[in-house]
Formats: sequence, structure tokens, C-alpha cells
Amino acid sequence: MRAIVVSVGSELTTGQCTDTNAAWLSAELTRAGAEVIRHVTVADQVEAIRSAFVAARVDAEVVIVTGGLGPTPDDVTRQAAADALGVPLEENAEALRQVEAFFAQWQRPMHTANRVQALIPRGCAVLPNARGTAPGFAWTGGGRRLFALPGVPAEMKAMFVACVLPAIAVESGRPTTHERRLLCFGITEATLGATIADLMARDRNPQVGTTASGAVLTVRIVARGRNPEEAGRLADRDAIAVRDRVGVAVFGEDGETLHSAVAELLKSQGRTVATAESCTGGLLAKRLTDNSGSSAYFLTGYVTYANGAKQGTLGVSSAVLAAHGAVSEEVARAMSVGCRDAARSDFALSVTGIAGPTGGIPPEKPVGLVYIGLAEASGVAVRRFRFGEHLTRGEIRDRACKTALNLLRIALLREREADSGSRLETPPVDDSSPLP
Amino acid sequence: MRAIVVSVGSELTTGQCTDTNAAWLSAELTRAGAEVIRHVTVADQVEAIRSAFVAARVDAEVVIVTGGLGPTPDDVTRQAAADALGVPLEENAEALRQVEAFFAQWQRPMHTANRVQALIPRGCAVLPNARGTAPGFAWTGGGRRLFALPGVPAEMKAMFVACVLPAIAVESGRPTTHERRLLCFGITEATLGATIADLMARDRNPQVGTTASGAVLTVRIVARGRNPEEAGRLADRDAIAVRDRVGVAVFGEDGETLHSAVAELLKSQGRTVATAESCTGGLLAKRLTDNSGSSAYFLTGYVTYANGAKQGTLGVSSAVLAAHGAVSEEVARAMSVGCRDAARSDFALSVTGIAGPTGGIPPEKPVGLVYIGLAEASGVAVRRFRFGEHLTRGEIRDRACKTALNLLRIALLREREADSGSRLETPPVDDSSPLP
Repeated sequence: MRAIVVSVGSELTTGQCTDTNAAWLSAELTRAGAEVIRHVTVADQVEAIRSAFVAARVDAEVVIVTGGLGPTPDDVTRQAAADALGVPLEENAEALRQVEAFFAQWQRPMHTANRVQALIPRGCAVLPNARGTAPGFAWTGGGRRLFALPGVPAEMKAMFVACVLPAIAVESGRPTTHERRLLCFGITEATLGATIADLMARDRNPQVGTTASGAVLTVRIVARGRNPEEAGRLADRDAIAVRDRVGVAVFGEDGETLHSAVAELLKSQGRTVATAESCTGGLLAKRLTDNSGSSAYFLTGYVTYANGAKQGTLGVSSAVLAAHGAVSEEVARAMSVGCRDAARSDFALSVTGIAGPTGGIPPEKPVGLVYIGLAEASGVAVRRFRFGEHLTRGEIRDRACKTALNLLRIALLREREADSGSRLETPPVDDSSPLP
Repeated sequence: MRAIVVSVGSELTTGQCTDTNAAWLSAELTRAGAEVIRHVTVADQVEAIRSAFVAARVDAEVVIVTGGLGPTPDDVTRQAAADALGVPLEENAEALRQVEAFFAQWQRPMHTANRVQALIPRGCAVLPNARGTAPGFAWTGGGRRLFALPGVPAEMKAMFVACVLPAIAVESGRPTTHERRLLCFGITEATLGATIADLMARDRNPQVGTTASGAVLTVRIVARGRNPEEAGRLADRDAIAVRDRVGVAVFGEDGETLHSAVAELLKSQGRTVATAESCTGGLLAKRLTDNSGSSAYFLTGYVTYANGAKQGTLGVSSAVLAAHGAVSEEVARAMSVGCRDAARSDFALSVTGIAGPTGGIPPEKPVGLVYIGLAEASGVAVRRFRFGEHLTRGEIRDRACKTALNLLRIALLREREADSGSRLETPPVDDSSPLP
């Protein structure tokens, strides 16, 4: 079952609004076993909407259009659908009753303009709108189904769930899909792609693809099966294969973050952390406290932006600062050690670097140079990273925090593996942030 | 000049991601005088992309495609464009040089998979990617222009501004508009609307409207004129009227933030600030260091999440903590005073509250209860706020930070006015966060 989503609205084609309906509908349709082959967005113009309908009806069994069902003159989806179907618009008694009932329910007078919302192309069924004035409508013929839904997301979603899902579910026994998304950090997209190239083969089932966002890579696995169990089994098998090959770079699944993964490890291992930040300015502490209950593992954060603060709060010696500068391995080391002592935490992360856009002194200390220290009972390790000068200040701070969290995550995993007597595979090179 | 935006990516057609590129591009194209007649989104499939290209080239003078230029096997936009243009894909020396240079710049080995990113349809011009590995490409012929840009928003936007806008700008000379956006905080949308109701009249020029996002209100002024000067003059006149009426609640214009406004005041008045945070967990320090050069005014941040940290680092007495609890006026006061002493700053902001979703003890201490302290040479003031229980943890933390920044902003404005001998009008009630 192929599906096409048509979004109607000049606020979309002029870029005033982002179309979130198409993504929501696509996720729902995919879950229902449909293959969404296209989204089309057109302005509030009869001919543009009509053409989109006609083309969509050729290419897909299910066409869902949202928007353009309101009471104002720029709402022309009704007319465009009638033109596409070659039938006249008619005032529908059931639709009129629904519009009138909506106003009666809220004891408001109905504006005469709302009467046009009861116009429906002849032969279409009315879809009730539980949350607004605009009824939708549905047409069926020649193995094709067309659904017109309101553009307001809450109204659209309620109508889709109430009217569209049951209608397309009659086509069950059809292949269903099961989706899993694995999240990775510390590996390039090219390396990831090469590692799982065979799984990503074109006409394979499951379909496996990768995307990148903010240095986090997502491996998306979409399995088709004759029933949910089969689809789930196939997706799970690929997820295991991806985890086996990609190893510790997989930090979680959809909805998780590096900081939520770290939080879970800290909690389950009963460990605490503190932070000493310079260039990230509090962002690392913020991430570690993003989740409710973070007081269980997060003790203190120091944002030692000024050199005086590094000395006074963390005990970094003025001699070290003078000899090496604030952005140096030595200062990162002293910050993490001083932070762990002051906070009396199990782990302490320190970050010092040049987030830019100003303040870089190439070639020794370019924008994007960041030192990250991790102090624990067994000692302290400092790593040097270069996040590219093509990144913005916000991106460099984001990468520095993610990288710091990832170092802590790997330390916690090592600790867990050591406790269990097994051995963690070597972590992959974090080549979004190479060592020199 | 008609334009069509084609977005490529199975993550879009399956609803895994919302397409924000199409809206951004449409807003830019509209501003450049183009009429965006359609968005089309297709999966990572050669034939689907090819068909979308071919149809778009028939209907519009400018076609912009984003996505599918990466190094993995599911990146097939290059091939689809070549098929649509009826030319072969060729390794382009300039493109290869750019990809190689990107890796060389960061001293990283280039994966062989990245070599496919140098493949370009014959006859196309290479568009350099300042922020990533994927070069774009452009084709011109028969009054049509096709631009292929990467899907990563930051890369796409940089390439659009650098390569596409100049290419389409030749078609200028349209009726002009001038837009200004004033940003407000500490006033409700209803109060704002009532204050400028006459300016917001329907068929007036300029058109004035308001929107709200994250407790920041935007007054958008769009003036039409026969030429840029006239449009600019009309917009400026309304902007002055809005500032006069709304007063100190206007903190800036488009692109500014509460923290950038505070940063400017701190810098121009030669003042410094430090922060002591509990529930906001570092977010306030992060905001104050969001801009380059923040070391001029930001000294130290303390994220005293645990009670022990509040005592040890800020000198909050255990008796006060025991008597009133960590979320109390007394603790907020002690935190801000202790912070100012420890950091030796001119101002110190403290935040302690219940960000939720857990940890609330209604009715005395519900989720959303936040105390904010501001210590300065002349003394310390603490205010109590209730950010609604309908807000998420992230929203409560955001509101608390913005409110703290706004308190500091108003204190800085008062100081400036006192220095200049004039008088600041009474700040409006911050009724997004009423006093009890």
C-alpha cells in the first residue's frame, strides 16, 4: 500500500511555518504498513491542489491531504478535490449538522462564513471533527482512497486516528513494519557505513540507513513482515548485528541521549560526578541535570570562566596557568583533579578550550581546540581534541560536551566490565575529534 | 520567478524527521522575490528523485534539492540528477580536491567511501561546502536553474547563502517590504496586544502582529513601500511607537536574546556577574557565556546541585537549609550573597527551585516554584516565582533563566539611568511568573 501526503497552505510554501503534519502522518502510515512515497506541499490555490491530487491518485493507493478546509476565502481544498474528482460541491446535511453542533456545544453564534465548511464533493463521506469546525471528507474508488483532513495538527491527528486508521486497516494481513533506531557517537558516517554496508544493500529487508545530526549518527532499521512478530524479529536481528559490529560507539536507542546514557550508568553503578568547565560555560552541567533525579549522581559544577576562578575554586596554580595558558593539557588536568577534590565525587570532568569565534591563536591554539580531563580514583586522563573551525561556537560547545560525556560513558562501561570480569572491546577512534 | 524545493531522504518520508529545510529555504526564496509553488519530499530512491526533478524543472525556473549527497550507499541524489539531465556522473577534480582538503584540514584520513562525493553530473558546476564533506552542484540551461545542496541544515544554509542567493539575485526590482521584529519579555500577549491594538488593525500598513515562543513575545512589523527607503521609514516609525508604549519590556530586536542584551549592558557598564544555580543546573551560566568575549563580564558559575555543595562552596548554613529547605527565599538569598563573595563579582544571580517533574511537595512547594536572588553592592533582593505545573522540566528551567536574566537586565538599566540622572519607567509586572 503506497501513500502520499499532500499539505496545503501558503504559510508553508512561503516558509512562515514548518510542516509538522507530514512527518507525523508519515510515521503513522509507516507504522500502519504503508509505504509513504512522497510528500507534496502546495499553496492555497485550486489548480495547484487539484494537480497534486490527480498526480497522487495515479501513484498511490492512499492520498491524505491536510489543510485548506477552513471558512475563509483562501480555503480551497474542497473545490480542488471536487475538480479533481470531476464532481460538483454540494452542501452536505450531515456536515452542516456537525458544524452547527460544534457552535451549539460552545454556545457561540455560527458565522455565516462557516456554512461553506459544510460543502463536500458529491459522493464523498463526511469525517467528523471532534476538535474543531472543519469536517473532513473521504472518497473511495478504483482501489484508491482519498482523505481530506484539517490542517490544525490537533484536529488532524484526532481525525486520522478516528477515521483514517480504521479505514486503511481493512487492508491488513498486509505487510507490517517494525522500526528500530540505534544511536552512535565517536565514529564517522563513512566508517559506520563501511562497517554495515551489506546490511544497507538496496533491496534488502530490513532496510537499513544512516543519518547524522550534531555528530550523533542514527542507524535506522525498518523491517517488513507478514505480521508484527515477523517484522519485529527481523528488525531485532539487524539491531543485534549492528551492535555487534559497531560496538561501544552505540550508546542507545531512539529517545536516548549521551547524557541520559551516562545518567543511567552512574545511577546503576552508584557513582557520582562533578564538572569543571571553562569554554562550555555550564552546558555540561546542564546536560547532566537535564533529567529529573539527577541529584542522585550530580554533585557540583564549577564554571571557572575567569583564570581567577580556576585558581580560587579549583586550586589550579598560577604558575601552571602562566606557563601553559588556560587552554592546555596541564590546566585541564589540574581542573579535573581540583574539581574531584572539591566536590568529593567519584568522577570529575573538566573542559577547557577555545569555542570561538574569537580568541583563537593559530597554529598552536586555534578555535576549536579543546582539552577534556577525566579524573577518577585510579588517576586522571586528559585528551586533546580539535573540533573544526568550520563549526559555530554553539556547535563546538555541543561537541565538547558530547565528547566529555562519551569519555565518562566509556570509563563507566570499563568499570562495569571490570567488575563483571569480562572485557570491553577497544572503543573506536572518535574521529570527529581526532588526537593530534 | 517560480521555485520548487525538493527534499530527499527516507528519514523524511517515514516520518523519522521533520523537514525544516523546506521552510527555511521557502522563507529565503520568498524574501528574494521568488514564488515557491511546491515542496516535494521523496525517499532515497533514484527513480523517485529523478521524477521529482523532471517535474519540477517543467514547472519552475529554480529547483533546489537538498539531501542525498553523503558518502553512504543510500545517497543517490547525484545519480538521480545525472539521470534527469541525461548526462553521466563523472569524478570532478575540483570536487575531489574539496573533499580531500576538508579531511586534510582536520588531519584525518579520508575514507574511500567519501570519494563518491566527488562525483558530479557532467556539465554541472561544483558548489563548495564550507562546513562539511559533501560538495553541492548547480546546473543551468533553458532558463532553468537546478541546485543540489546537502541535507545537513548548517551546511545547506551556508551553501545557499554563499552560492544560490547570489545566482538568483539577478532577478530583483520587486515591490519592497521592510520587516522589523521587536522582542519583549515580562509582559503577557494579551497586555501587549491591548497596548498596541490600533497598530495591529487589519488593513493597516505596516502590518503589525505578535507571536509568543518560550515566554518571549515578538512584535513583527512588516511595512510595504514603493521603494526600500519608504518601507524602511514606515517600519521604523512603528518600531519607535511600540518601544514608546511597551517600554522596558522590549529587550531587543530580531537576533538578540535576553542574555545578549544583558551581556551588552554588562560590557558597556563595565560590570561583572557570577551565578549560583540549583534547579537550572548550569543553564544560566551557559547562556551568559553563549557569546564570544563573555570572559569580560562572566567570572564564575557554581552549580550547587547537592546541599553539601551549597554549604561548602557558597557558605549556605546548614541551619538555614534545615529550617527552610533548599527551595526557599532564605537559601536563594544566602546563595546569591555567598556567590558574590566567592566570585568577587559586581552582581550575583542565584536560582533554586523545583524543575520537576518529580520532587514537588504541593501546596507549599509545587513543581515550578523557583526563587531567584540578585545580590549587588547595595544589597540583595529575592523574588518568588511560580512557573506553571503544565510546563516541562526544560521549560521551567528555561523560564527561570530568562526571568533571572531579565531581573539583572532591569537592575543594569536602573543603574545606567541613575548614572545619567534620568529615571527608568516602572518595569511591567512579569505576569508569566506572578508574585504570590
